[in-house]
Amino acid sequence: MERREPPQTDEGWYVLHDLRTIDWDAWRGASERDRELAIDDGVEFLEAAENLDDAEAGASAVFSVFGHEADLLILHLRPTIRELDTLERRFEQTAFAEFTERTNSYLSVTEASGYTGAEAYFDPEQEADPGIKNYIESRLYPDLPDAEFVSFYPMDKRRQPEQNWYDLSFEDRAELMSGHGDIGREYAGKVSQIISGSVGLDDFEWGVTLFADDPTDVKDLLYEMRFDPSSSKYAEFGPFFSGRRFPPSDLGALLAG
Amino acid sequence: MERREPPQTDEGWYVLHDLRTIDWDAWRGASERDRELAIDDGVEFLEAAENLDDAEAGASAVFSVFGHEADLLILHLRPTIRELDTLERRFEQTAFAEFTERTNSYLSVTEASGYTGAEAYFDPEQEADPGIKNYIESRLYPDLPDAEFVSFYPMDKRRQPEQNWYDLSFEDRAELMSGHGDIGREYAGKVSQIISGSVGLDDFEWGVTLFADDPTDVKDLLYEMRFDPSSSKYAEFGPFFSGRRFPPSDLGALLAG
Amino acid sequence: MERREPPQTDEGWYVLHDLRTIDWDAWRGASERDRELAIDDGVEFLEAAENLDDAEAGASAVFSVFGHEADLLILHLRPTIRELDTLERRFEQTAFAEFTERTNSYLSVTEASGYTGAEAYFDPEQEADPGIKNYIESRLYPDLPDAEFVSFYPMDKRRQPEQNWYDLSFEDRAELMSGHGDIGREYAGKVSQIISGSVGLDDFEWGVTLFADDPTDVKDLLYEMRFDPSSSKYAEFGPFFSGRRFPPSDLGALLAG
Amino acid sequence: MERREPPQTDEGWYVLHDLRTIDWDAWRGASERDRELAIDDGVEFLEAAENLDDAEAGASAVFSVFGHEADLLILHLRPTIRELDTLERRFEQTAFAEFTERTNSYLSVTEASGYTGAEAYFDPEQEADPGIKNYIESRLYPDLPDAEFVSFYPMDKRRQPEQNWYDLSFEDRAELMSGHGDIGREYAGKVSQIISGSVGLDDFEWGVTLFADDPTDVKDLLYEMRFDPSSSKYAEFGPFFSGRRFPPSDLGALLAG
Amino acid sequence: MERREPPQTDEGWYVLHDLRTIDWDAWRGASERDRELAIDDGVEFLEAAENLDDAEAGASAVFSVFGHEADLLILHLRPTIRELDTLERRFEQTAFAEFTERTNSYLSVTEASGYTGAEAYFDPEQEADPGIKNYIESRLYPDLPDAEFVSFYPMDKRRQPEQNWYDLSFEDRAELMSGHGDIGREYAGKVSQIISGSVGLDDFEWGVTLFADDPTDVKDLLYEMRFDPSSSKYAEFGPFFSGRRFPPSDLGALLAG
Repeated sequence: MERREPPQTDEGWYVLHDLRTIDWDAWRGASERDRELAIDDGVEFLEAAENLDDAEAGASAVFSVFGHEADLLILHLRPTIRELDTLERRFEQTAFAEFTERTNSYLSVTEASGYTGAEAYFDPEQEADPGIKNYIESRLYPDLPDAEFVSFYPMDKRRQPEQNWYDLSFEDRAELMSGHGDIGREYAGKVSQIISGSVGLDDFEWGVTLFADDPTDVKDLLYEMRFDPSSSKYAEFGPFFSGRRFPPSDLGALLAG
Repeated sequence: MERREPPQTDEGWYVLHDLRTIDWDAWRGASERDRELAIDDGVEFLEAAENLDDAEAGASAVFSVFGHEADLLILHLRPTIRELDTLERRFEQTAFAEFTERTNSYLSVTEASGYTGAEAYFDPEQEADPGIKNYIESRLYPDLPDAEFVSFYPMDKRRQPEQNWYDLSFEDRAELMSGHGDIGREYAGKVSQIISGSVGLDDFEWGVTLFADDPTDVKDLLYEMRFDPSSSKYAEFGPFFSGRRFPPSDLGALLAG
Repeated sequence: MERREPPQTDEGWYVLHDLRTIDWDAWRGASERDRELAIDDGVEFLEAAENLDDAEAGASAVFSVFGHEADLLILHLRPTIRELDTLERRFEQTAFAEFTERTNSYLSVTEASGYTGAEAYFDPEQEADPGIKNYIESRLYPDLPDAEFVSFYPMDKRRQPEQNWYDLSFEDRAELMSGHGDIGREYAGKVSQIISGSVGLDDFEWGVTLFADDPTDVKDLLYEMRFDPSSSKYAEFGPFFSGRRFPPSDLGALLAG
Repeated sequence: MERREPPQTDEGWYVLHDLRTIDWDAWRGASERDRELAIDDGVEFLEAAENLDDAEAGASAVFSVFGHEADLLILHLRPTIRELDTLERRFEQTAFAEFTERTNSYLSVTEASGYTGAEAYFDPEQEADPGIKNYIESRLYPDLPDAEFVSFYPMDKRRQPEQNWYDLSFEDRAELMSGHGDIGREYAGKVSQIISGSVGLDDFEWGVTLFADDPTDVKDLLYEMRFDPSSSKYAEFGPFFSGRRFPPSDLGALLAG
Repeated sequence: MERREPPQTDEGWYVLHDLRTIDWDAWRGASERDRELAIDDGVEFLEAAENLDDAEAGASAVFSVFGHEADLLILHLRPTIRELDTLERRFEQTAFAEFTERTNSYLSVTEASGYTGAEAYFDPEQEADPGIKNYIESRLYPDLPDAEFVSFYPMDKRRQPEQNWYDLSFEDRAELMSGHGDIGREYAGKVSQIISGSVGLDDFEWGVTLFADDPTDVKDLLYEMRFDPSSSKYAEFGPFFSGRRFPPSDLGALLAG
């Protein structure tokens, strides 16, 4: 029973996926004035978050979510976990919060790992290639892509007798990650991603947030990956949430159907 | 650890299965006038959806669902995901929505795949046989069959050590899909289906919607398939929802028992 | 990877198990008059169902259920699924429904299968033995036994690598079913059963409803079966519901404690 | 595929574990008078149950439960299942019930089995040793121990390919049960137990109710057992509920914090 | 089928993790006066608990929790289980409790085990090394570290055919625990822990509460451990809760966003 070598990792911004349903019964029953106050308050909160009024760095966005499990995904990335804590509670102070219920959430932190090509970045004795450094920093401190469709899901690597990711050698994992990454690169320009680690923070090991203009590109990418052993043998997926990004100023239109 | 070849797929219309219970306590307590308003509004929404007033193409239908998990299944197929988003929220603007609660939902997109016989359709260098082309288009842009009974369930293919669909060779999968399809063809004229993919869109990999006049034909078909290795070894089923189609104009009668 | 031969099956009446809790808070808070109206309405609905006022054939019964998951099991068997749909919604029109919440349900159809001894019944070229025919018809169109105790549970047959019912040969399954049936026959006169299939209708593959005057006979029967390979290796059980039958006219006494 | 020999069993009293939370919001909001009425009614019900006013034999007790899943465990043992049905519904007639919600429950029947040493008891041709007979009767008709701490959990024996209790020979099971019992006997005087069977009655196969003055004795006993193959290979545990017994007359003090 | 030797254990303080959401709708709707009363009452309860006004020994702390599953974690350690029972119910007497809902909880007791280095401590014939004795007592009667971030999760050791912790020899387990501990020691000064046993007390076997100033230290520690066979093969994790400690006097500020 041998201990396997973990990859080195670096972490960037903390990430909160805050999923909420709209309480449509309350919304339909509200007066015009209460609705306006709620929309104003909601827009103000969401715009301030997107403008980073509360922080030196990070990013925020809001999405309309499909299906019964949520109507809204509010996504925040911030340098400290304290800022996420404040944002989560500050939202509850808005008049809009009264018309929402929290149904899901995910806490994680953007992560880059030293499986392939990034060894130098993680070696304190080496000066990393600027290209690699830029690449890794773009993963740790991502720009939110300006794409319409979002897909979010948490995932684990399996630890079963014949499908135990954590019992593979470093080399085997690096090779699998490299093949996995090759598929992702085929979709460059069509699908972009934020990978965030959540071991010790939330129920799964990673959160994956994918952005695309065309939802079928996300479907094609993930379906192709499912035939790659990194997924077919070693991935365990949590629930999937699909949404469409909208500018905070459209909140009123969204609530009006 | 080898990467397997995925099938080519084509996608058609996006599909939303919107499952709702009726809040019978509220319904019994409502005034005659509020009930009438709700029915009028509900019928108007459902008829407009069936008439495709909101879209260039697609289809909609409504079903009475058995059991405690839902009373209604509202099914929408539309060319864009944006149209589904709008339909979902527009329903909430109706006076009828007040008497319903969302209990389940499923987001997917109609899918045809290149496992068998359809290679030419997916080969850009070949001109596909018109019969195949028609067949595939009828799967991507289906007419909703005029059948009384509906059965909807989401499903996955397994990824377990001895039952790993995604680790089979393309040929093995094609052969299994072909045998699977042979059973389906025995039920032609009795059971028709809409297959929609949901990798990256919702929690399972596919949604299956079956239509039949006689529910025992659906039972016989699925029971026979369960003995086929594509199901017996590789299928994992989600919850099943059974319903009966009704014309929107019967909504009042349905609510009256 | 071989396709296995399914058994032939015949279907009789559709079955709805409608499980409800009583909203005791509402009941305690109701006026004497509202309680009386509710009881009258509830008794009328239940008696009409037991008397088959709505149908040419079938059966209905009501049971007091133990524990927090339900207080009532309303059981309906009817020739068509449309009749079950109507009964389910008609109950909601009663004043009694206001004091109940749906917590579970199961949709299935009585089933007889051609594993053993019944080959001739399923062979269109053969005239079946009248004894077999009577036996099968008693399974498809059962009389509800006049027993105090009921136990209901849904179940699946497993499809795991070493415990895959659907990958056994027909002969192996027939032999297992025969042994399984032998145990059941030891309890003839003590425990009677309704077996109903639900593939494509609800979340499990079968519903099992057992009737006995002495609950320990049900326990003994199922415990003995658990050591038979048909159960020990191949059965997967859903939740169990236990109840006691009562005549609809006792509804008021039941609600009075 | 061989059928294994089940042990003989004998059954005694039916057992209901009735788990409830207190609706603290309602309690804080209630008038002093309503609280007094509720307490009086609750104490009267619980004392009558402990005094067996409703039955010839049996036992009842009430416990304060730790954590969010329940605040109260009301435990009843009675000769017939009808008596449990009545007790469950009679509680709902009390003014105290209004301040509680049912969150869990378990229905079972005290059980003794013929694995070891008790063969003669189960052999109609033999006259059983009076010691064995007393021992078995103490398991079927137990005195509730006067201990402060209670731990209740339901459990199954596994039916997996390499861990299939129901596919072991009678001798292997008897030996395992004997070893299991040896551990229990080490804790005689410190931990006492009620074992009740629930095959066909509730979702698991057995309920286990342990009593001790010192909770760490229960922890030590169960931890030691976990290393015994009867548990390490064959036991599957449901949820655990921990509580402290209190006399019904202390209900008011309990509700006052 | 051999019984394995359990480790000796010693237990210290009982531990209650009490997880609650804030009812933000009620909070927004409350009058300024009701909010002040609630905050005063909440602060008084939390400060009294931290000051151990109710007990001779122990510790308490309160944390703001991320995500939808809880807003607050109230952590109590006390010499007796009776004290935890009282604290849990006493909180419900506060005006602040009205603005909270219990969503999760965990009952356990601090535990030290005799796997490595601590044999002498558990040997009644030997006088233990004072260093070991101090170490063990610091685990049984821990000081709550003054760190900002907390991560709490319950866990089990697996009992599967090829991954059965409870079927390993004592020596193998001791070696695995020793390797596991080595990783923990690398994080000394960065991450500190409370390990509490819950066999027979709650649904998992242990609760793990980790404290750190930097959440990525917790993530790094647990990620590194995941590659160690004690976790990669034998650990099964429950839900993870992440929070930030705050002094009770900040409760008002927390509720104000």
